[in-house]
Amino acid sequence: MTETLTLYTAKICPYAHRVELALEEAKAKYTSYQIDLQNKPTWYAPKVNPASKVPAIAYGGPTAAPEDPSPQSVKIAESLVLLEFVADVYPHAHLLPTDPVARAKTRFFIEVVSSKFSPAWNAFFRGQAGGSVDAFLNALEEVQALLPSEGYAVGEYSTADIAITPFIARAFVALNNDIGGYPEGESKVVLSKLAEPRFARFTKYWSDLRSRPNFTATFDEAYVTDAYKKRFASLRAQK
Amino acid sequence: MTETLTLYTAKICPYAHRVELALEEAKAKYTSYQIDLQNKPTWYAPKVNPASKVPAIAYGGPTAAPEDPSPQSVKIAESLVLLEFVADVYPHAHLLPTDPVARAKTRFFIEVVSSKFSPAWNAFFRGQAGGSVDAFLNALEEVQALLPSEGYAVGEYSTADIAITPFIARAFVALNNDIGGYPEGESKVVLSKLAEPRFARFTKYWSDLRSRPNFTATFDEAYVTDAYKKRFASLRAQK
Ligand SMILES: N[C@@H](CCC(=O)N[C@@H](CS)C(=O)NCC(=O)O)C(=O)O
Ligand SMILES: N[C@@H](CCC(=O)N[C@@H](CS)C(=O)NCC(=O)O)C(=O)O
Repeated sequence: MTETLTLYTAKICPYAHRVELALEEAKAKYTSYQIDLQNKPTWYAPKVNPASKVPAIAYGGPTAAPEDPSPQSVKIAESLVLLEFVADVYPHAHLLPTDPVARAKTRFFIEVVSSKFSPAWNAFFRGQAGGSVDAFLNALEEVQALLPSEGYAVGEYSTADIAITPFIARAFVALNNDIGGYPEGESKVVLSKLAEPRFARFTKYWSDLRSRPNFTATFDEAYVTDAYKKRFASLRAQK
Repeated sequence: MTETLTLYTAKICPYAHRVELALEEAKAKYTSYQIDLQNKPTWYAPKVNPASKVPAIAYGGPTAAPEDPSPQSVKIAESLVLLEFVADVYPHAHLLPTDPVARAKTRFFIEVVSSKFSPAWNAFFRGQAGGSVDAFLNALEEVQALLPSEGYAVGEYSTADIAITPFIARAFVALNNDIGGYPEGESKVVLSKLAEPRFARFTKYWSDLRSRPNFTATFDEAYVTDAYKKRFASLRAQK
């Protein structure tokens, strides 16, 4: 028995995208509501998420407009908390394996994405101290080393794959359009290194991830590209 | 059906302490092996945890000496991954509620501990930029605000309580002994503020946590105090 669910999201946001991928995979019925992150509605923090971030959900309670969610619905934030929540509420979707060891591997993969892959990408993308082509590629290689010889992060598709997909998708948007705070043209260096045999397993993995229906249904590449151009062009200009 | 389990741990380490609390709570049968963090055995990284940190476990496979774990056992690291693992392997211990919303609240509490409480304590303790009495107390207040009017973080005792307990215990060791990189005597300021009505709910919570059998069985206060004095005295001397 599932309850009504409203997802507060934003197409540009990789964290919110995780939850969309999970809900799509679970074939969940839900209402999606776009939050303009540059101009957030005043009701959002007090009524939905005090941290004023997406993603967040309103779950249960009487039917209500997204702009005025019922105080009786539960509000839940944080993308990784929400991935576990979707896995718990829609067990038939098998977003997590049932074997405890395989579940631990799923969560460990996500931990590596959070503590290594994302920070390394972010530092490179923003042109921050410690960010470099090599540091990013090394972090990616560490993720790649966790992959089995074929299939998804822990064999069957899982929250591990969902957790990384939005970040890879947006990295390619940035690289393909040379958007970011890294020196001009370094995107070409990264893209050509990614095409080398060293990253063959990752390339296959990314091809598997992006051909899935839950990805094509949730990633608006044209929109994200446009938003990235507008929002992150200044990263390089500031240098 | 549970398998053999060896926990690699260190009394000083709050992350490792989490896993001990969980295993004790589950009344698990396991072998505990102390790793000297100042002088780690050479076999530890190659045979147990490439990241060379505690906690880690070896799970399953044939019986083996902790110093020479079987390649057939699975090695798992990361304290929060291990808390979920222990909850999965010992479901009778009810370390996580069964209701998805309550599970989400458990994980959200842990997220706040990881992203707010621990960093604020750490910055204060080490005397780092951004660390201050007020920043730490504000983070603690944010945790306190998540607590229900009585009982544990999400009502029944759970991994949420386990995740924070070792950090509170070590904070009091540091404060009670004025150990840390903060200015001398600031521990007294923190301790007196913690005794004010503003933190009455937290004080009750901490009293509930530290009187539990799994805490008394796993926290060696004299050892941790001595280790803190030796290891962290230099934090202030460096200033
Ligand atoms: N730790 C959060 C991060 C969410 C997050 O940072 N969302 C960004 C957009 S990608 C946001 O809402 N930012 C709005 C703001 O900070 O004002 C999660 O995993 O859900
Ligand atoms: N994210 C890890 C952190 C574990 C950690 O930092 N452990 C420390 C001791 S408290 C360690 O083993 N340090 C050894 C080292 O870094 O050489 C977890 O949650 O388990």
